[in-house]
Amino acid sequence: MASETQTRENNSFVLRGIKDVFFEDRPVPKPSQPHDVLLQVNFTGICGSDVHYWQEGRIGHYVVNDPMVLGHESAGTVLEVGSEVKSLKKGDRVAMEPGVPCRRCVRCKEGKYNLCFDMAFAATPPYDGTLAKYYVLPDDFCYKLPDHVTLEEGALFEPLAVGVHITKQANIKQGDTVVVFGAGPVGLLCGAVARAFGAKKVIAVDINTERLEFATSFGVDATFVPSKVSAQENAQRLKDEHGLGQGADAAIDASGAEPSVQTAIHAVRNGGTYVQGGMGRDEITFPIMAACTKELTIRGSFRYASGDYQDALDLVSNGKIDVKKLISRTVGFDEAVHAFEDVKAGKAIKVLIEGPK
Amino acid sequence: MASETQTRENNSFVLRGIKDVFFEDRPVPKPSQPHDVLLQVNFTGICGSDVHYWQEGRIGHYVVNDPMVLGHESAGTVLEVGSEVKSLKKGDRVAMEPGVPCRRCVRCKEGKYNLCFDMAFAATPPYDGTLAKYYVLPDDFCYKLPDHVTLEEGALFEPLAVGVHITKQANIKQGDTVVVFGAGPVGLLCGAVARAFGAKKVIAVDINTERLEFATSFGVDATFVPSKVSAQENAQRLKDEHGLGQGADAAIDASGAEPSVQTAIHAVRNGGTYVQGGMGRDEITFPIMAACTKELTIRGSFRYASGDYQDALDLVSNGKIDVKKLISRTVGFDEAVHAFEDVKAGKAIKVLIEGPK
Amino acid sequence: MASETQTRENNSFVLRGIKDVFFEDRPVPKPSQPHDVLLQVNFTGICGSDVHYWQEGRIGHYVVNDPMVLGHESAGTVLEVGSEVKSLKKGDRVAMEPGVPCRRCVRCKEGKYNLCFDMAFAATPPYDGTLAKYYVLPDDFCYKLPDHVTLEEGALFEPLAVGVHITKQANIKQGDTVVVFGAGPVGLLCGAVARAFGAKKVIAVDINTERLEFATSFGVDATFVPSKVSAQENAQRLKDEHGLGQGADAAIDASGAEPSVQTAIHAVRNGGTYVQGGMGRDEITFPIMAACTKELTIRGSFRYASGDYQDALDLVSNGKIDVKKLISRTVGFDEAVHAFEDVKAGKAIKVLIEGPK
Amino acid sequence: MASETQTRENNSFVLRGIKDVFFEDRPVPKPSQPHDVLLQVNFTGICGSDVHYWQEGRIGHYVVNDPMVLGHESAGTVLEVGSEVKSLKKGDRVAMEPGVPCRRCVRCKEGKYNLCFDMAFAATPPYDGTLAKYYVLPDDFCYKLPDHVTLEEGALFEPLAVGVHITKQANIKQGDTVVVFGAGPVGLLCGAVARAFGAKKVIAVDINTERLEFATSFGVDATFVPSKVSAQENAQRLKDEHGLGQGADAAIDASGAEPSVQTAIHAVRNGGTYVQGGMGRDEITFPIMAACTKELTIRGSFRYASGDYQDALDLVSNGKIDVKKLISRTVGFDEAVHAFEDVKAGKAIKVLIEGPK
Repeated sequence: MASETQTRENNSFVLRGIKDVFFEDRPVPKPSQPHDVLLQVNFTGICGSDVHYWQEGRIGHYVVNDPMVLGHESAGTVLEVGSEVKSLKKGDRVAMEPGVPCRRCVRCKEGKYNLCFDMAFAATPPYDGTLAKYYVLPDDFCYKLPDHVTLEEGALFEPLAVGVHITKQANIKQGDTVVVFGAGPVGLLCGAVARAFGAKKVIAVDINTERLEFATSFGVDATFVPSKVSAQENAQRLKDEHGLGQGADAAIDASGAEPSVQTAIHAVRNGGTYVQGGMGRDEITFPIMAACTKELTIRGSFRYASGDYQDALDLVSNGKIDVKKLISRTVGFDEAVHAFEDVKAGKAIKVLIEGPK
Repeated sequence: MASETQTRENNSFVLRGIKDVFFEDRPVPKPSQPHDVLLQVNFTGICGSDVHYWQEGRIGHYVVNDPMVLGHESAGTVLEVGSEVKSLKKGDRVAMEPGVPCRRCVRCKEGKYNLCFDMAFAATPPYDGTLAKYYVLPDDFCYKLPDHVTLEEGALFEPLAVGVHITKQANIKQGDTVVVFGAGPVGLLCGAVARAFGAKKVIAVDINTERLEFATSFGVDATFVPSKVSAQENAQRLKDEHGLGQGADAAIDASGAEPSVQTAIHAVRNGGTYVQGGMGRDEITFPIMAACTKELTIRGSFRYASGDYQDALDLVSNGKIDVKKLISRTVGFDEAVHAFEDVKAGKAIKVLIEGPK
Repeated sequence: MASETQTRENNSFVLRGIKDVFFEDRPVPKPSQPHDVLLQVNFTGICGSDVHYWQEGRIGHYVVNDPMVLGHESAGTVLEVGSEVKSLKKGDRVAMEPGVPCRRCVRCKEGKYNLCFDMAFAATPPYDGTLAKYYVLPDDFCYKLPDHVTLEEGALFEPLAVGVHITKQANIKQGDTVVVFGAGPVGLLCGAVARAFGAKKVIAVDINTERLEFATSFGVDATFVPSKVSAQENAQRLKDEHGLGQGADAAIDASGAEPSVQTAIHAVRNGGTYVQGGMGRDEITFPIMAACTKELTIRGSFRYASGDYQDALDLVSNGKIDVKKLISRTVGFDEAVHAFEDVKAGKAIKVLIEGPK
Repeated sequence: MASETQTRENNSFVLRGIKDVFFEDRPVPKPSQPHDVLLQVNFTGICGSDVHYWQEGRIGHYVVNDPMVLGHESAGTVLEVGSEVKSLKKGDRVAMEPGVPCRRCVRCKEGKYNLCFDMAFAATPPYDGTLAKYYVLPDDFCYKLPDHVTLEEGALFEPLAVGVHITKQANIKQGDTVVVFGAGPVGLLCGAVARAFGAKKVIAVDINTERLEFATSFGVDATFVPSKVSAQENAQRLKDEHGLGQGADAAIDASGAEPSVQTAIHAVRNGGTYVQGGMGRDEITFPIMAACTKELTIRGSFRYASGDYQDALDLVSNGKIDVKKLISRTVGFDEAVHAFEDVKAGKAIKVLIEGPK
């Protein structure tokens, strides 16, 4: 390992407690395994979960007990590679898949490594995130960007992979009608992925009409604003207004909001699919009998697994999804807090933070 | 058509309104299509839904507006066959699949005829049921019983097919651990089917210890009585006491009870499956985030479809499931009301009503 | 039934024996079932199987013993509808799905009606085809064309549905690399469908470079001309030249040629899929051990089933596949023989015959 | 590492060239990774592939260029565990899964590690096998035996896992009819697994009637001896004699013989499944059109992957499959050559070699 990196020059954006973040020079991480790659982080997007940790100090049973670097939506440049790394070399630009599973448990070996019992995921306690100058990943979690794909786009692969995974869980295929609840970054990307998977009609639902306007420019076929009526009434109007007949083939919730979930279940046809992608309250009132008698398939979706990052790479590099459109603005590393505040205030779809120079 | 059947001698057990049943001589049904079969009904089991119509006059949006014959769990004997019937002849004993789909809609043509938009199902308004002397079915909904299978057993194919369908929805396979909530007839049959599908451990859950005792004699590997604690605590104890580690591969609810659903969701492992088989309240409080982050597959199960009755026939005729054990008693047609009262009072697992002679 | 159709004015193109066709005025067919629709046939494409019956009088064990009307790729206009038809009315323009299954057998009820043991398929002995003035179909086998889709396009739905079914059998999904052997109409359509299903690279293989040139204009990403070397060598060159690494995710044979099948098996990666879509010799020399140790999934594809015609309709009406490009020319009904000769001589991709006026 | 194992006392059975084997004291292997386990090998079964390497010095493109220890069907006892091993301790008895994948490639991460591009498999050049006193495996490839399962049974998990994998590839489920070609150890185990998966009828096919007699004692429902007629004729007689109607739901070849493959394809029903489990000639004459028009799913099966060894453990420990019956005899390590000769001569179903003491 070259001496240049053996110093405490790893500028990092660290969460110390509720609403308590600071910059810290940390030790430069050392690639310790033959397949490890040392990366300089170039761009990092801010995710709702980053904001949530910042505001609450926890998500569910994941609690920030020790200071933790934030960030997990990143792209970077290869600085050094371990002895067994063949697919990458110094200078390569890569999208960084930020969760490394144990590779040994039953879930890993059956191909669902997102459900690994021993996952090390960036910016999920106790694992540090990527809002730092340097980061180490195994080579197979680095996705080399083609020349025509920018590092900024590479940082967007993470939410895109989330959208890919959700859309796969929804089993979207040629000719399907799909309703996506929530027109934030993940919802927008789910809609775009559904189109790429062959959906014939994608309807975006949100209470924020500005977001729906953006959604239209991002490729959805139609939009729907729910009224203050029952979930069943909203679902019926949705079906009526958009010619869905007995219901949509699939619905995706990317909002986490209780009324969205309820409306979605009523909006799906007999035998259709519903996917819970958005995070919200632990428990909600749920129309279980509608799900039962319509024999719905309901799936959770958690992060991403085998093939999802590769799909993100393909979708962007083939021009099927233009993730650049989602970038509201890019700020310097020093301005990280402002970026978090903008995202918290809903002033942006996606803000990127440039890595320390 | 033989003259003997051209009379009003079709003794039927008819529901006229809430808690208002009577016997009526109705016209003998006439097989009108080339594939129709005229059957004499020999035995009919009573289902919770029959009792529910009797007590409430409706189930959900199915309302008994006109007098309707009850009953749909039947076996009978072939009296006459249409011109195109080749698989059956007079005197054959058959299990009767009581719902005939349209065969034309998208759901029918994709192999999910239980989700047909135009199903004619016995004892679901406005269609008459099988608690009558005669009934007409298409030949492909009659399953010929082998000599060693009795008509009483044939009447049990209906709840067994329900159990088969639920267990298929749960995707049970070799080596799975399965928890079944509710030890009534359907729950018991789900457990038995899960064993036949290769499950290595089936745990029955009920608050009624007598039922659990019976479940043990019917082949479940273990039983669990929930305490008056939270669903999460019950689920944890269930996992601890029965060595389920991170959770069961699958859970089936055959109770319809809210605490069962909640406990089941918490009892399933990452990536596992939950099936809603039991009918209960339209809406319940549901641990949606546990379902999401564990990436569960949750499916409703509604009646039965392609292959389920055939599986029921195979499971009984191969001796894998001894449905006879579920028959608490058999009563004459005249005593139908008493039988309904017994089922309502929970005094029996399954009561059969013999058809009019 | 209107009197105008009660006459022998159903001009039909009939195959009497090997290379022996003639025009015959046949009785106008009568819709006999409540869901039947009487159609005037407007356009019919000629398929390789039509030519094969004309030249050989048989395909496999299907032998033309009695005079049989040819043709099965048709679109027409509704003249009359049965009493139960709700989705169509006089004047509607429809694509005609030409095979009607029994709707009762195990295969039909499990959603694979193309494998029905009792299928009535147009222009497959003993069933007459659609090269006639009139034809009767059940309503659910008629697909109403939107205003912007022409009847000529509607006639192309049949080969497109074949391509849809093959591509589904190949399980093509987002990001797949696909090699299609044979650049005739079905091969071209498979390539286009694979693109619509999300394939990232489709490579067309043919020995006819003109066809490959056309394929390029029809949307394939790359082409390959096999050399007179072993199948393994051709497969290796194919993989090398097109960056397929360990092999393609899927290969489709739409040629029926032995060397294509062999090359395809060697061109697919570990765990990939191969589909036999083309018809050829009953038996061929097959690299069975490569299929075994690479653990390929190999599927036959036969006609089309649930959802395939609807997909064809969606793909054309949404502009994803421009089937018009495949129409080499359209001839009058009187010129049917010339059209058959052109197809036999390979002078055309797809020739349409206009129905009798 | 304890000093007792730091010596050249690892007695091994080594293949040096064609028909050239010898015993060699090799260095004791050293667990080098935190999850490694050092095992003393107790019993090893002999597989056809071991015999093939011994006789031919190669299998396909796998060539024994350097001396290689034979054997891969083993059970052993834990001697030492690495620092991270939690599931095992010294003295535990385990079945040894003998192929360790890279855990990094696309195939590994999608759950098909048997198709890993960089597999290290015991007794497949250049990797040494298990016919030695000591062997090192990662903990997750060691399956702890319950007290009531013997080490001899544990050695049989390997062929049982092969049978489990084949049977999963065949998608066998409740009520299926299955024909297994070849009544050697793998064929017998496929039949037993198919029964455990719910098959209602398993028919064993072999030309050796002694083997079929044994098969009957091992649980198959019926047997069939092919005649010297065409594959189609044998398939027809097979279907007629065993009431298979249109054909079996699935056929498995565990023979590798060309006539078996051909007969199997003709014996399967429309839409059924065929699995190539047996190894034989690279290319055979194959009824491709029957496979196409019946729309069969044909799969290769290669070794075993996620869950298969666990299934083997469950099936044996739950008493569903009595693998002990397959053990013809057990010999001392010194007699290894005699054991190989017996297997080559077909004098035994399965011979175990005891490990060096």
